[in-house]
Amino acid sequence: MMDKGHSLEILAFDLDDTLWQNEIYYREAKDIFASQLSEYLPEAEAKERLDALEVDNIRLYGYGIKSFTLSMVEAALLCSDGQISGRELAIVLEAGKAMLAQEVELFEGTEAVLRELSTEYDLMMVTKGDLVEQQHKIERSGIADYFQHIEVVSEKTPDTYRKLLERHGILPEVFMMVGNSLRSDVLPVAEIGGHAVHIPDPRPWFHELPSDDLISDNEYVELEHLGQLPAYLRDRRQPSS
Amino acid sequence: MMDKGHSLEILAFDLDDTLWQNEIYYREAKDIFASQLSEYLPEAEAKERLDALEVDNIRLYGYGIKSFTLSMVEAALLCSDGQISGRELAIVLEAGKAMLAQEVELFEGTEAVLRELSTEYDLMMVTKGDLVEQQHKIERSGIADYFQHIEVVSEKTPDTYRKLLERHGILPEVFMMVGNSLRSDVLPVAEIGGHAVHIPDPRPWFHELPSDDLISDNEYVELEHLGQLPAYLRDRRQPSS
Repeated sequence: MMDKGHSLEILAFDLDDTLWQNEIYYREAKDIFASQLSEYLPEAEAKERLDALEVDNIRLYGYGIKSFTLSMVEAALLCSDGQISGRELAIVLEAGKAMLAQEVELFEGTEAVLRELSTEYDLMMVTKGDLVEQQHKIERSGIADYFQHIEVVSEKTPDTYRKLLERHGILPEVFMMVGNSLRSDVLPVAEIGGHAVHIPDPRPWFHELPSDDLISDNEYVELEHLGQLPAYLRDRRQPSS
Repeated sequence: MMDKGHSLEILAFDLDDTLWQNEIYYREAKDIFASQLSEYLPEAEAKERLDALEVDNIRLYGYGIKSFTLSMVEAALLCSDGQISGRELAIVLEAGKAMLAQEVELFEGTEAVLRELSTEYDLMMVTKGDLVEQQHKIERSGIADYFQHIEVVSEKTPDTYRKLLERHGILPEVFMMVGNSLRSDVLPVAEIGGHAVHIPDPRPWFHELPSDDLISDNEYVELEHLGQLPAYLRDRRQPSS
């Protein structure tokens, strides 16, 4: 692969569904939501209407559990034509509140990877979402001490990353973002000239690098698991002939 | 007053109820909340129970309109013993949503003060609350361009300010915080050795400085209105004999 003469200095990580479980709790809450509405409409339809309302509300609410919970309450009122009982609605509300108190479940091996990488790079968290919710999760995660920088942003656009790097005085060439979302973690960073690693769907350990033709500078690299990152970074510095 | 040889460089402002209206919208929403529950309990009691629940929920929810709206929904279910109708609850939910879409109403003279001060100082916003909500308000306020730095924090403690100043490489001696809250804007800044101006309750323009015995370094200054700030800062630099 090409080397432009800049060594990587900053490794930035997305958090939700990159370092720890997240989406699974939303799915569980949606199941509870849909079951409370099952006398009014089919569960699949209830979830579809909730999903649509969530998207509508993002502009006003932003991301995160509180936004999602407000959308659940609103969708429950809409889906039941205001007929849902207080008892049922309290269960929906409680499902959201339980998410806020949920323990952080790191993906297997996360801490070992961070410990190893933190000896060679400055680590940064870059997470999109609700400030308080993300800070609570970071505190409870037990891994905050591996990170030099913690950034909670409301959107992950090229402009967000550009300003963030400027603020820290970091060149895109020495910056690498690692995350599960092409749209938020990978493409905007590639667009501003940074490096990006995509880990699309965390699965059990699978110690293998992707084929070389997926690796190219200015684009991005796809790994199957966070556990592959240290080996990938070693290979990147000392490419085998 | 004492001068330690450091000139003021950074003027930081709280936003809600310092530069623009805020608390008034919460009071209006609480009125709507209480009126929807008036068949179940007296309005004053409904508001008290809401206030208590809000405080209980801050640890989990943080500050802001979404948190407040979730507390209204929860309190409505509690206060009515789950008997509140879907139609009534939808009105409560809508009152919260309307707050999120509320236009920003700057206090009279705010923009003129910022325009004047921005020619002599670097201005910073330091606001506590929900990241997305505060960013939306800042965007809509029309005054963001006067500020070099915008900081949204989840709590305003001495430690918050200390880290914030460290991150920007600002000495407390050259930093002044202006805000309506003793607890959040004034005392924590005074504690870390910065300067603080308290504007407790914005009232109509009243061009008068407080009596000299209220002014002392390492403590804080109280002004009656933001419009007094430029004159206070001029006097501070060139004290009349």
